[in-house]
Amino acid sequence: MTDLPDFEQMWRELTPIGRSASSGGYNRLPWHAAELELRAWFREAATARGLEVEEDPFGNLVAWWTPEVVATLPGLPDPPDQARSARGPAVLTGSHLDSVLDGGAYDGPLGVVSSFAALDLMRSRGVVPDRRLGVAAFVEEEGSRFGRACLGSRLAVGATKWADAAELTDREGIRLGDVIEGGESRMLDGVATYVELHVEQGRGLVDLDAPVGVHDAIWPHGRYRYDIAGRADHAGTTRMEDRIDPMLTYAMTALAANKQARVQGQRATFGRIDVRPNGTNAVPSHVTAWLDARAESDAALTALVGEIERQATERADRDGTTVTVTAESVSGEVTFDVDLRDELSGRLGGVPILPTQAGHDAGVLQDAGIPTAMLFVRNPSGVSHSPYESAEMADCLAGVTALADALTGLVTAQVTAQVTAQVTE
Amino acid sequence: MTDLPDFEQMWRELTPIGRSASSGGYNRLPWHAAELELRAWFREAATARGLEVEEDPFGNLVAWWTPEVVATLPGLPDPPDQARSARGPAVLTGSHLDSVLDGGAYDGPLGVVSSFAALDLMRSRGVVPDRRLGVAAFVEEEGSRFGRACLGSRLAVGATKWADAAELTDREGIRLGDVIEGGESRMLDGVATYVELHVEQGRGLVDLDAPVGVHDAIWPHGRYRYDIAGRADHAGTTRMEDRIDPMLTYAMTALAANKQARVQGQRATFGRIDVRPNGTNAVPSHVTAWLDARAESDAALTALVGEIERQATERADRDGTTVTVTAESVSGEVTFDVDLRDELSGRLGGVPILPTQAGHDAGVLQDAGIPTAMLFVRNPSGVSHSPYESAEMADCLAGVTALADALTGLVTAQVTAQVTAQVTE
Repeated sequence: MTDLPDFEQMWRELTPIGRSASSGGYNRLPWHAAELELRAWFREAATARGLEVEEDPFGNLVAWWTPEVVATLPGLPDPPDQARSARGPAVLTGSHLDSVLDGGAYDGPLGVVSSFAALDLMRSRGVVPDRRLGVAAFVEEEGSRFGRACLGSRLAVGATKWADAAELTDREGIRLGDVIEGGESRMLDGVATYVELHVEQGRGLVDLDAPVGVHDAIWPHGRYRYDIAGRADHAGTTRMEDRIDPMLTYAMTALAANKQARVQGQRATFGRIDVRPNGTNAVPSHVTAWLDARAESDAALTALVGEIERQATERADRDGTTVTVTAESVSGEVTFDVDLRDELSGRLGGVPILPTQAGHDAGVLQDAGIPTAMLFVRNPSGVSHSPYESAEMADCLAGVTALADALTGLVTAQVTAQVTAQVTE
Repeated sequence: MTDLPDFEQMWRELTPIGRSASSGGYNRLPWHAAELELRAWFREAATARGLEVEEDPFGNLVAWWTPEVVATLPGLPDPPDQARSARGPAVLTGSHLDSVLDGGAYDGPLGVVSSFAALDLMRSRGVVPDRRLGVAAFVEEEGSRFGRACLGSRLAVGATKWADAAELTDREGIRLGDVIEGGESRMLDGVATYVELHVEQGRGLVDLDAPVGVHDAIWPHGRYRYDIAGRADHAGTTRMEDRIDPMLTYAMTALAANKQARVQGQRATFGRIDVRPNGTNAVPSHVTAWLDARAESDAALTALVGEIERQATERADRDGTTVTVTAESVSGEVTFDVDLRDELSGRLGGVPILPTQAGHDAGVLQDAGIPTAMLFVRNPSGVSHSPYESAEMADCLAGVTALADALTGLVTAQVTAQVTAQVTE
């Protein structure tokens, strides 16, 4: 096993930040105290490695290892001239630092820490990149504060417009536009490849007895807000038959979503709910609840979501309530770059290739036309978005080694090929 | 119709306090800004009438019209000596000023305003009381902040101990013991009768075409906290069959409660829920929900609550979750003083007598051995604990007149009878 003291040191530094003493889970919401501490840590880790930190107007961070920086390190040869440009071709790796509410330690930070550690390993091996190599930390990947998953990467690629995002509000009613200024991101200029390492969010590698794998695709998925309107009433004096109770419509919908997902072999979850007025002795006036739905194909997602909405509406008719469903964000199927996937899997000795049901910034970048690949590390619990999420240190280090191997190929071989092509033109 | 400009003036003063611009409902939680404003209003209304304000260590307020005060008013005869004692026999009327979350304007304040207006009417009629007459505003009647209904009156009669109440926390985690000092209440010393006027929380008087009625009893009722524990998981990657989702157990329980209440002809409501972590893309780890249950007899309540818990536990076994049910407060059936009820109903010309399914401070005082009666005023909507709660001004004024008539009898005839008895001993 590779010995990587820097990885273990970085991991120890992050462990206490934003951790709940009661649950053991993490609450690292964008621009709240814990996440600001993680940003400060990121800058320190970058500076300690002589990397140049870029923060775009949305709060996305990149620590760049540019050939210029390489040249300043003693004992290394000069990089090719064409790679010196600040916006010359680049390979990006990284992940995110934010967490879901009461989430695990690995989802996000494992990718960032592994990226720094992979860079350390490449340097210790004497790798000299022909192009820039950046370690990224995309902001609000989980959508835990402003409700839009992969918000930072969507803004960076322009899939989400700042004018729309600025109006998003968190649970305290704070506008994103009042937290950051926004503007135009240049951080992805020249980025020709993105590789994200992530802890596995399931038990695929456990079943296959492998420490590391490569994802080939992301399931289509979406978030749908159910606004169910009824009429507030006294919980004691109002006869059952006189009520217009949105909680009943919600309860049946939550059960129907679960049943439909089972029947159709997909995923559907109601994990978030907001009840008004939320008093013990009052029939609620409104229930707002969020459906998270995922399916193996776009058609299957449409069928799943449609059937749940149909059953909700049918129940609402019986209850006298009204249901309005708003698709807050829907992501179609993402297929990661096939050539890149095969190259990585081959370079890593034929590691398993599996799809994931989780959304990632990698999917957003792939959708935006940047060839992208994902590595993932075994999670013995299979549990994710939970304090029970876990990974063995040996597997994490195997992940770092795999990432370093993958990146080495990307920052040397491809540029060589490109330079050759230019020469022969 | 009696002309009562003071009633209308007081009502206009209260209307804007704590009103939500968006819903039109009221949020008057104990010791929050709106409720503090109502307390200040209460003191001003009392002072303007030459009444002496007493606040007990729990925040309950009484404005006393004592015979001493009566004696200072020009043109009135001296009261009997025995009524001069500060703790001499007393009749209490009033209600509460706090509201449920997003509640109506009438539930509570109508009783307090009507009490002041009834006192004004009695004075204008030249009534001279033989005993103290107090206008009370009990604190935290709805239990909207610290979760215990009738908390102020329970503390005042000693049914709830201060040592226990001090540890109650609100939704922000603030201890009641850090909000008030507590101690021992003397406000009910000498109180021989309590009369509470309230807006009706149903359509009984609408059906009977009567503006005012008398309650004879309060249904048994209770609040039961359901703590349902599961396991947080990723909403996308976790297979449906691998989940331990407490939301499913909750949803089935909410539907079962509704169905059982219908089948048994009683009331059961889940109107409040707290989900952890409450994230769109996470299967919840915990759901806490509150059951409000009411029934026509103690036995019927036990049967209803038992059946709901049985079904919840059965579902939990299927879901792999665990359910813990805690009875936070349970009130047995209250039968108001029969002699007082009949006297009031007779004095008011045989107004309708009906039970109520709502808890009231009147029930707490009756349980503590103070003969108690309740008057109630027609509510055209029948809706309660809701912005849609309503009452016609004419009915409100009929309520004031009825209350003045009832109180006049209580502060003159009974004392006369008592004095006569003493003379003949």
